[in-house]
Amino acid sequence: MTEMLIESEANARFKRWRRLAGESRAVKKEGATLLEGIHLTQVARDSEAAIPAVILDAERATAEARALARETAGRKGARLFLLPPALYDQLSPVEHGVGVMCEMTLPKAPSSELWADRDLLYLDGVQDAGNAGTLIRTAVAAGVRVILASPTAVNLWTPKVMRAAMGAHFGAVIAEGVTADTLARVYRGTVLAADARGGEDLFLASDSYAEGAVAWIMGAEGPGVSAAALAVTHRRFYIPIEAACESLNVAAAAAVCLFDMRRCRLGGTESR
Amino acid sequence: MTEMLIESEANARFKRWRRLAGESRAVKKEGATLLEGIHLTQVARDSEAAIPAVILDAERATAEARALARETAGRKGARLFLLPPALYDQLSPVEHGVGVMCEMTLPKAPSSELWADRDLLYLDGVQDAGNAGTLIRTAVAAGVRVILASPTAVNLWTPKVMRAAMGAHFGAVIAEGVTADTLARVYRGTVLAADARGGEDLFLASDSYAEGAVAWIMGAEGPGVSAAALAVTHRRFYIPIEAACESLNVAAAAAVCLFDMRRCRLGGTESR
Repeated sequence: MTEMLIESEANARFKRWRRLAGESRAVKKEGATLLEGIHLTQVARDSEAAIPAVILDAERATAEARALARETAGRKGARLFLLPPALYDQLSPVEHGVGVMCEMTLPKAPSSELWADRDLLYLDGVQDAGNAGTLIRTAVAAGVRVILASPTAVNLWTPKVMRAAMGAHFGAVIAEGVTADTLARVYRGTVLAADARGGEDLFLASDSYAEGAVAWIMGAEGPGVSAAALAVTHRRFYIPIEAACESLNVAAAAAVCLFDMRRCRLGGTESR
Repeated sequence: MTEMLIESEANARFKRWRRLAGESRAVKKEGATLLEGIHLTQVARDSEAAIPAVILDAERATAEARALARETAGRKGARLFLLPPALYDQLSPVEHGVGVMCEMTLPKAPSSELWADRDLLYLDGVQDAGNAGTLIRTAVAAGVRVILASPTAVNLWTPKVMRAAMGAHFGAVIAEGVTADTLARVYRGTVLAADARGGEDLFLASDSYAEGAVAWIMGAEGPGVSAAALAVTHRRFYIPIEAACESLNVAAAAAVCLFDMRRCRLGGTESR
């Protein structure tokens, strides 16, 4: 397999990767992102994703990383690039990586028919990349395999979000730029919101809240669920927390809500 | 109130703050940490914590930040320092802060009698500062007001952890460097562990798991609960996740376990 060495920061391909690494807008505009590390590269290799390029740290890549890079490039028909550490580090979201990364072409935006009848998580203005990635990972783990994001939310395909989600993107249908109005117009299930400001106590809700397809809305760090999203919500729940704490982190709140729904559906209550 | 301007990076006090901002070891050695932002400063102001210094960005601090700084300094008998933006930025854990920070003296390590009979969360080697902070915040929100950390875990008092916990430190008893053996020897409640590798299904467990004082062990990102901690565990639980996902983030897993316990204790099951 041919390996191409890129030595100059002026290389056009490298400059494009650097934009993908650092700019959310570039990820959107180019329709591509970067995945770093053994685990993400393995998941990408085994997925349907298009991988046009695999990138190795020419000096520091481990033997495992090199073998995985060659195998991934072979299986995906990708080109293999070697970068000196100084260039590789400019692309990597972590300080001491294993030295393998790949460029992935983003999948096409899914038709709304792919999510109109399914359980989903709607990220209403969530801003933090780490939170967004954890939310995707938690949702997929809870069996909620559709993630929608409002136009105000962080881009879900940036390297940081990909990294925090640990490959969960590949098990999910992801649609961005979906307004609350579109959700209301298209969605045929029940819309629930987690809202620290009020509503019903999640733990006192009747089990029926988990019946049929459910869309869970989680709001932005700080402001919470927006007025536009609340306007299309059928039922609003709060998690009963101690007074000593103002609120939960949005990813923790989602873990509580999504797994409470999963518990109800798995029949955990009856068995007690 | 006297305000002192520090203009030089060579200033001994500034150099000490810079170590507190960047080095976990310095936080431990000096017995002090930095808190950034309106919310943390407010919580610190209203707490029992010793605050020897309040720090303002001389140029960019908002009017709200300035007023809060003066009030906090007055109430705590703290000195008020002004830093030019170039120096302030070297201390701040965030890029666009509001320009107020304070130095806090760490509380004394609590005697084990303060936690031997209480619900607690034991962080067994958790490495990531953001995760550790979210874990503390989630535990306090769930009514678990004692946090222990193994000698292998991240320092719980660094500025990054303080920031992610959003003030939950002030509602908790925190003890670091507690070995699994010490936990086993001192603790009089039941020791539970969340372990993705096996044990009982959390959602099929009898409610009695939540009776009496409970210590929940959460393991490190990646390796999970250590052999030493498993050896002192009375019951081990896994969260039933979808096969499409390998595991949950440790902070998400803790949210599920701690709030499932809270639900049982609040009697949510009976009311269904």
